[in-house]
Amino acid sequence: MNIVLEISYIGTRYFGWQIQPNKITVQGELEKALESVFNQKITTIASGRTDAGVSAFKQVVNFRVDTIIPVDRLKYILNDKLPKDIRVIDSYVVADDFNARFSAKRKTYVYNFYFGDVENALISEHSLFLKGTLDIERMSDACKYFLGEHDFTGFCSADTEVVDKVRTIYDIKILKSDYDYKLIITGNGFLYNMVRIIMGTLIDVGYGKIKPNEITDIIESKDRKRAGYTVKPVGLILYNVQY
Amino acid sequence: MNIVLEISYIGTRYFGWQIQPNKITVQGELEKALESVFNQKITTIASGRTDAGVSAFKQVVNFRVDTIIPVDRLKYILNDKLPKDIRVIDSYVVADDFNARFSAKRKTYVYNFYFGDVENALISEHSLFLKGTLDIERMSDACKYFLGEHDFTGFCSADTEVVDKVRTIYDIKILKSDYDYKLIITGNGFLYNMVRIIMGTLIDVGYGKIKPNEITDIIESKDRKRAGYTVKPVGLILYNVQY
Repeated sequence: MNIVLEISYIGTRYFGWQIQPNKITVQGELEKALESVFNQKITTIASGRTDAGVSAFKQVVNFRVDTIIPVDRLKYILNDKLPKDIRVIDSYVVADDFNARFSAKRKTYVYNFYFGDVENALISEHSLFLKGTLDIERMSDACKYFLGEHDFTGFCSADTEVVDKVRTIYDIKILKSDYDYKLIITGNGFLYNMVRIIMGTLIDVGYGKIKPNEITDIIESKDRKRAGYTVKPVGLILYNVQY
Repeated sequence: MNIVLEISYIGTRYFGWQIQPNKITVQGELEKALESVFNQKITTIASGRTDAGVSAFKQVVNFRVDTIIPVDRLKYILNDKLPKDIRVIDSYVVADDFNARFSAKRKTYVYNFYFGDVENALISEHSLFLKGTLDIERMSDACKYFLGEHDFTGFCSADTEVVDKVRTIYDIKILKSDYDYKLIITGNGFLYNMVRIIMGTLIDVGYGKIKPNEITDIIESKDRKRAGYTVKPVGLILYNVQY
């Protein structure tokens, strides 16, 4: 049986999604809970890794098991075993050829951020604080240069393992919310640290260090040094995965 | 010199605002930071106590000291000394007769809540989860019966010390946000646990246990047992204090 779990988690306590020896990870906690339910080792596949500190509003995971447990009850059973900062929001059976990673068509990330003179403790809990003043209009203008298919070699970590660095951005925009701003970005996939480097580059635009229309040049240069810094994970959320 | 600090804090780690022996409190942390800045014991007055676990988007505090430190710099100096979950958002000098507690004209609290089948870890971080389905329209309808001046004897903890339990609610409404709902309530003051008991009563309305128009009767009965339960502090925020 091929089973999907939709899960949410607060990344703060975890060394990211992927299981690692001697480190507390989301995959590690989830597989421990699954093992205690099914009395066997279960290996899960996620839509993609999330970095240390990154949260998920909805991450999608699949695994295979034969069981008589009603799969729609599995979410309750797992939630009883998982730490409170990981919650299964849905559980259901899918077609045998479904793979949470390779079947994913679109992913959406949200980056919460705000700026000003001093931090507000309550906003900083789930939003990146940036000192000073950012020109949000300039940043919004810069977003459009990321749209479409590009080689994002300059926008990923040197540790990126995949060879093909071409990705398509379907939508990217900045919205104002009650307390802060949200960068919302949807693409067919993201390279290691790619969202955080795009955010870092937009912050450079917001501070006036680079012009919006320089983005195209920076992307085409494929030069990591010309893109912005890798912004810390506070405020970054895997928001949705579409299949 | 009479100095105001506007502060924000995440209540999770604290036994509320008020200083208590052998307990970690917001006032305790703030006065420790002030003492290290001014080399003398400083006593602060807040607009009101917040209970254990309750957060503040903006709490207002005043204290007296003679100093040559520029008061507009004080926020930065204090933030260097305070734990990250307490942030001073502003510091300024006020008239000598200003008292953060007695000069307060209106206070606004926000209660974040959501409901459903299972929790989402990310929403539950700052929002109260309620199992099942709530009728938000009924709850919104019930809000209007709290408006105006009432004796809230039935809507406070038995530990309430004040004698006069008449308070005026200027505004009370429920708004839908991206992830959850917000009860927003503004009054000239609130008794001990009053917001949490109003929320508990509205939850009873949402679940269909009581009718919206029964609220008036419940208030007039002055009977704590007829009002709802004292909802836990998760999701409750002191949002603003007006003078």
